Amino acid sequence: MTTLAVSHPALQELLDQLGPVAVLAGDAVPVRNHNDYSGLPPTTPLAVVRPADTAGVATALRICHAHGIGVVPQGGLTGLCGGARAGENEIALSLERLVGIEEIDTAAATMTVAAGTPLETVQQAALAAGFFCPLDLGARGSCAIGGNLSTNAGGNRVIRYGMAREMVLGVEAVLADGTVVNCLNKMIKNNAGFDLKHLFIGSEGTLGVITRIVLRMFPKAGSSVVAMCACEDYAAVLRLLGAARSGLGPLLSAFEVMWPDYWNRAVGELRARNPFAGDDTPYGAYVLIEALGTDPESDLPRFESWMENLLEEGVVPNAVVAQSLAEEQALWGVRDACGELHQTWPGHLAFDIGLPQTAMDDYARACKAELAEKVPGLESVFYGHIGDGNVHIVAYRAGDKVQPKDDVEEVVYGLVQKFGGTVSAEHGIGTIKRRWLGHARSPEQIALMRTLKNAMDPKGILNPGKVL
Amino acid sequence: MTTLAVSHPALQELLDQLGPVAVLAGDAVPVRNHNDYSGLPPTTPLAVVRPADTAGVATALRICHAHGIGVVPQGGLTGLCGGARAGENEIALSLERLVGIEEIDTAAATMTVAAGTPLETVQQAALAAGFFCPLDLGARGSCAIGGNLSTNAGGNRVIRYGMAREMVLGVEAVLADGTVVNCLNKMIKNNAGFDLKHLFIGSEGTLGVITRIVLRMFPKAGSSVVAMCACEDYAAVLRLLGAARSGLGPLLSAFEVMWPDYWNRAVGELRARNPFAGDDTPYGAYVLIEALGTDPESDLPRFESWMENLLEEGVVPNAVVAQSLAEEQALWGVRDACGELHQTWPGHLAFDIGLPQTAMDDYARACKAELAEKVPGLESVFYGHIGDGNVHIVAYRAGDKVQPKDDVEEVVYGLVQKFGGTVSAEHGIGTIKRRWLGHARSPEQIALMRTLKNAMDPKGILNPGKVL
Repeated sequence: MTTLAVSHPALQELLDQLGPVAVLAGDAVPVRNHNDYSGLPPTTPLAVVRPADTAGVATALRICHAHGIGVVPQGGLTGLCGGARAGENEIALSLERLVGIEEIDTAAATMTVAAGTPLETVQQAALAAGFFCPLDLGARGSCAIGGNLSTNAGGNRVIRYGMAREMVLGVEAVLADGTVVNCLNKMIKNNAGFDLKHLFIGSEGTLGVITRIVLRMFPKAGSSVVAMCACEDYAAVLRLLGAARSGLGPLLSAFEVMWPDYWNRAVGELRARNPFAGDDTPYGAYVLIEALGTDPESDLPRFESWMENLLEEGVVPNAVVAQSLAEEQALWGVRDACGELHQTWPGHLAFDIGLPQTAMDDYARACKAELAEKVPGLESVFYGHIGDGNVHIVAYRAGDKVQPKDDVEEVVYGLVQKFGGTVSAEHGIGTIKRRWLGHARSPEQIALMRTLKNAMDPKGILNPGKVL
Repeated sequence: MTTLAVSHPALQELLDQLGPVAVLAGDAVPVRNHNDYSGLPPTTPLAVVRPADTAGVATALRICHAHGIGVVPQGGLTGLCGGARAGENEIALSLERLVGIEEIDTAAATMTVAAGTPLETVQQAALAAGFFCPLDLGARGSCAIGGNLSTNAGGNRVIRYGMAREMVLGVEAVLADGTVVNCLNKMIKNNAGFDLKHLFIGSEGTLGVITRIVLRMFPKAGSSVVAMCACEDYAAVLRLLGAARSGLGPLLSAFEVMWPDYWNRAVGELRARNPFAGDDTPYGAYVLIEALGTDPESDLPRFESWMENLLEEGVVPNAVVAQSLAEEQALWGVRDACGELHQTWPGHLAFDIGLPQTAMDDYARACKAELAEKVPGLESVFYGHIGDGNVHIVAYRAGDKVQPKDDVEEVVYGLVQKFGGTVSAEHGIGTIKRRWLGHARSPEQIALMRTLKNAMDPKGILNPGKVL
């Protein structure tokens, strides 16, 4: 522990109240708490405080509030926007000891869970109880469910189950001054006054620290069907989306679109298995469709007959329907190859934006054209959860040790504003996207966000400098 | 126009700015604007202001804010809790002229609509565009979509589609001082800062006035199956709920439970057709199950084979599956007979509460017993949307001109607190349930609600005295 750290009266108080296991200061701050996945330079916070329960979180916040010290909540530290990175004069409030499934209520189909619990633990507990937790993302093994809520995480199955927000019935949160607000509601319907949980979901720890959560659980799917479709152009993708909505109804669980730039890289350099190998038609777009049903015997033949109609009608010129789990995984493999883009494009730039479905292809064309003009030599690929209006862009310029981040951001976010989209679909704002918030939100919206922030955290100690 | 009215400087300003068509004061205030469906005594507001657009709503609020006059937003006036009833020193801000479908985006599956539009108009516009608006309630012909959102309306299909809140992608709202906040987002994913729409949904006009809305539309169902099941007891109801969730998956669209007191009255005095006529077994509960699917040919036989298994396993001792639309309507007729309870029980007392599923039957028994003791001679019936944790209670004492409201409320809401439920599942708080808010929300939750109210409406002009 450094002299600076011991000398801080707040640290002494935290130590006295929470004990040495819960307070790591100075040199004792673990390296993992220096950063999240944002790629920003690491910083060493004044201390890491890691309470074992809600009362400990309340104590920590009460002390920090009294001393006016900034507090940065930390979960699995897998965020991409710098939202969990603590400055050197701030306390990192880690929820790593607030873990565990507290209750599973099979009648209500709910799970009550501590905020620091890894998402994968939540998923497994749901399965063990005969239910399904549809929230899923690549970082499942290390991200914390509390962090998933504070950033309102998305993922592949939003088209059917919604964002993390939609899976939450209740939260317990601690306010800036240490007040515990228990909204651990288990009922789907509860209109007794304002629904306060929405303040804490998606606000990245700037309005309160989520400590416990009541999640909805869903029935396990009895069957899955996965298909890959080739489309002539983006207009055909929209026709296919309409056909999938009406033909598959509530079974539709993923509608993932890949533009040719992404597709060619995935089945080329990244060696994903090409389901259309031998078909050299230059298609305009590729769509992965997943349907989760209840009947393993009849769901596949029903899906196939639906797909045959689309082939006959010419909506889809070529399609492959997986006949086994291995084939399903191979089709998902093309979509998941994005996780390997860093292999050939180390240090690439990645963007998570939202756009109205009708504007997506126009956006992609305009973006490609402007990038070619303003950032010569840049390569880029486009893919995303189009059923939800979410596009990911990954860009890279070979030979640049430092990628041309600012130039690419100017183009990507500049056009987002022009096409009525959003600068963050599912990754949040953190510090990295803060300067672009005005491209997605009006001055009146941002002013109202500040009104809330000032009302709930007048001293500004909760995750300072994040979002706003 | 009364002298009082003309003499008020705010009224003159409203008249000057909005014109005589938009401002009805004194004797010109229509009788319909004196009340909602709460059954409270009517009151005549200072004036009814009915702007034709968002700018007019902003002007009205700016003027009232400057003069410190209370403003009560009014939609279809079908609320049951007094939330839209304006006092005699307040302005009723009617959204009756803010009507119309502004846009239907078939690619995004969204509808943009003015807040005063009747729900039924919204439903019909969705159908005409090849989509489905799942929000539905008895008042559909007269209630306004803006009112549905401000009370976060529920209805029969919440188990599948969620509350009104879940069907909303964006809102435009006007703040207390007349600031227009445009959050007319069409994207399912948008994590650019706080999700402000949730402030306006379910807060009954106390934090802002909703003027325009972006609704999600859903695929039209291609098939429907309706069944009525008899259950031995409530434990069997919970087993059936579990079986329906896993067996019907996302097709399950209603799970409505009727206790024997309700059932016997519905098929007795209220003359609903008894699907179990001839079976004199005294069942412990009755369940209506609806599944909305995509395939009219195979969904019914699949449902029937699922139901046959339940009959064979003894989960359900008797069940009827509708074989035609007429039979579906007849089964729904038993559940919908609640709308006719007033015929034999004029002026009855009605309650809308929420409870964890496991606590419902215990609550119902305890409530019946305590009512019998404390309100002798009272009859009561229990039924509700059990898949969502929502119970309705209707009570009546023959011979009482004035029903024993306070005594019954003491029992009903007192036990709600004891069983961890909520005093309002889907009807809101308004003024009628305000004194019971503390039975469903903690002092810390209510304090945080006040913090929000004070921050967003420091002069307290928005729907004064409602909710808090």
